[in-house]
Amino acid sequence: MTTPRVDAGRVDLVRSGMAEGEVLLVSDLSNVRWLSGFTGSSALLVVTPSTSVLVTDGRYGAQARRQADAAGVELEVRVGATQAEMLEHVADAASAATSIVFEAEHATVAQHRRWAAALPRPLVAASGRVEAGRRRKDEREIDAIARAASIADAALAEVAPLLAEPGPHLTEARVRDLLEIRMRELGASGPSYETIVASGPVHAALPHHRPTSRPVERGDLVIIDVGALVDGYHSDMTRTYVAGRATDEQERVYAAVLEAQMAGLAAVGPGATARSIDSVCREVLDGHGLGEWFTHGTGHGVGLLIHEEPYLNRVSEAVLAEGDVVTVEPGAYSEGFGGVRVEDLVVVTSDGCRVLTASPKDSPCPPSPPTT
Amino acid sequence: MTTPRVDAGRVDLVRSGMAEGEVLLVSDLSNVRWLSGFTGSSALLVVTPSTSVLVTDGRYGAQARRQADAAGVELEVRVGATQAEMLEHVADAASAATSIVFEAEHATVAQHRRWAAALPRPLVAASGRVEAGRRRKDEREIDAIARAASIADAALAEVAPLLAEPGPHLTEARVRDLLEIRMRELGASGPSYETIVASGPVHAALPHHRPTSRPVERGDLVIIDVGALVDGYHSDMTRTYVAGRATDEQERVYAAVLEAQMAGLAAVGPGATARSIDSVCREVLDGHGLGEWFTHGTGHGVGLLIHEEPYLNRVSEAVLAEGDVVTVEPGAYSEGFGGVRVEDLVVVTSDGCRVLTASPKDSPCPPSPPTT
Repeated sequence: MTTPRVDAGRVDLVRSGMAEGEVLLVSDLSNVRWLSGFTGSSALLVVTPSTSVLVTDGRYGAQARRQADAAGVELEVRVGATQAEMLEHVADAASAATSIVFEAEHATVAQHRRWAAALPRPLVAASGRVEAGRRRKDEREIDAIARAASIADAALAEVAPLLAEPGPHLTEARVRDLLEIRMRELGASGPSYETIVASGPVHAALPHHRPTSRPVERGDLVIIDVGALVDGYHSDMTRTYVAGRATDEQERVYAAVLEAQMAGLAAVGPGATARSIDSVCREVLDGHGLGEWFTHGTGHGVGLLIHEEPYLNRVSEAVLAEGDVVTVEPGAYSEGFGGVRVEDLVVVTSDGCRVLTASPKDSPCPPSPPTT
Repeated sequence: MTTPRVDAGRVDLVRSGMAEGEVLLVSDLSNVRWLSGFTGSSALLVVTPSTSVLVTDGRYGAQARRQADAAGVELEVRVGATQAEMLEHVADAASAATSIVFEAEHATVAQHRRWAAALPRPLVAASGRVEAGRRRKDEREIDAIARAASIADAALAEVAPLLAEPGPHLTEARVRDLLEIRMRELGASGPSYETIVASGPVHAALPHHRPTSRPVERGDLVIIDVGALVDGYHSDMTRTYVAGRATDEQERVYAAVLEAQMAGLAAVGPGATARSIDSVCREVLDGHGLGEWFTHGTGHGVGLLIHEEPYLNRVSEAVLAEGDVVTVEPGAYSEGFGGVRVEDLVVVTSDGCRVLTASPKDSPCPPSPPTT
């Protein structure tokens, strides 16, 4: 893993949202990473009008300094051996403030109580102070996500052909292992999330099935949901195949889901509401009598987290903007039939979107092996 | 992944801690899993005096019912398409209560506000209502953790011998990949956490280093921290090797850390305070002049989470009890030298502890390859 550069504009953006006298206490680790380059599991970042102070525990002091240097971030690192010592450092860093703004979507109720007892200034709840900036990906971030997407494409291009004639050893878990091993070899630091391989009339009907020792059988629908992790950034993609030859019903449902997905992609662009993308997909599936089979939302943002703002669903208030990286992934599921999902990852551009995932999707036939 | 049986005694234990009129709203996903067998990423579990109601979203309805059946749990599953619908189901399930107890260590401040607005009963903060029972592992849980530990032992026995004569392609990342692939082949559903392979004077000085493309070099200290995941349960183990022949200083620090670790293990038993185990290790390292090099706590509980109660450190209030599964893992680190950590996973028994990790640790020499 390398530590990508962290643009100083990020913390400037956060500071520009701070009122007079405020400091911001960042406790969400993805937000900490986005502002500081730090990847450890213990950190409180205090952003003041003029400084950034990262408080961590004894495991991570040297690492935090090294990563801040590599990221090109001006950061003071302080180490506390206990939670109480860490909070003393936070109190000290916030001593010139009149109030401490904390992240209400991330701090737990118990954390808030401990902070209220240990910190000398009033705590003020806020949401999205860092996420508002984090949502719009810069060129380096889009590049990392695109590299992750390409790695998943390449791994799937090698593994999916095995589904054309599945043998008795081609279990769901084996397909997952082959994908994950190949992604590592291609330079990913790991899978982006627990790879989903869901086969047959029961497993493929579960949108978030975990791979089992079930062998893929001829005639199965096989949903493969796979992404790679590069420099902390995730990719996300789903393809559905039929092992062997598709039945008419499998072809029909596949075509309907693909039509919905293409309609969703066509609707993505700056100014489009997240809800409208969801509606477009849902209407296509409704038109094919499959509305009841589409049991989840249409998509979500992707970045340092695999699921982040903006969410594309019935109740989202988000409006898409240039630099958003989101999935478009309608699906149709029914126990006894199985399921179909087609998912691409896109970045919103000035006039529409660019699709970052490139695996073929025009039919549920497993592809031929790569010729190179 | 199989779904292990969930003993009805678990929810009975939780109910026995509920006052008249209370229902418990469980939002922590590990607690939900422990009580219901459900492994999805979206759930609110309402435990009433007579029923358990699991509320999830459209991705997980079928899965939740299937997993509850497999776990042998009596559970009503309700599906909400949105967060608001999910909360309506929670309100309905809690309608006979006079108060709703929630998990203060897990609920965020923002969640609490949304719940307070949507739920018709007063919310009462509590901590550890489920964890108190979850901490003591039953036989099935210990068996899963022991299997995970054995898988990591077997993988390490095959991979560690490569360190005796490292070639230019034996990078930290390669060692990690070999371990993780082998654990999968041996039946793990994955690594238990991000495997640590930290080599040489700089990387091995970082307790939580992530593997890089740095090749292991002759004379390096190499810290390998590896565990497997079996049925949702984690194992955790660290061994430190010298690639090739150890220097006197490497031998000296290794011997000191091993002495500390053995002293810690000898002190583990029911009734021992977590703090005393930490002190025992720290005193040994102090005696060798290495106190300043021991920059983290001595251990932590392991189960459905890789880090859970009880923590073994300077400030812990925990007292060990039969059924606790904890690590004992002192270390010594210094940039320029590198580092040494030795970690075993143990289950507290009626008269001491049983060590679940079995990889040799008597010297920093990489082991010979397995003969079978």
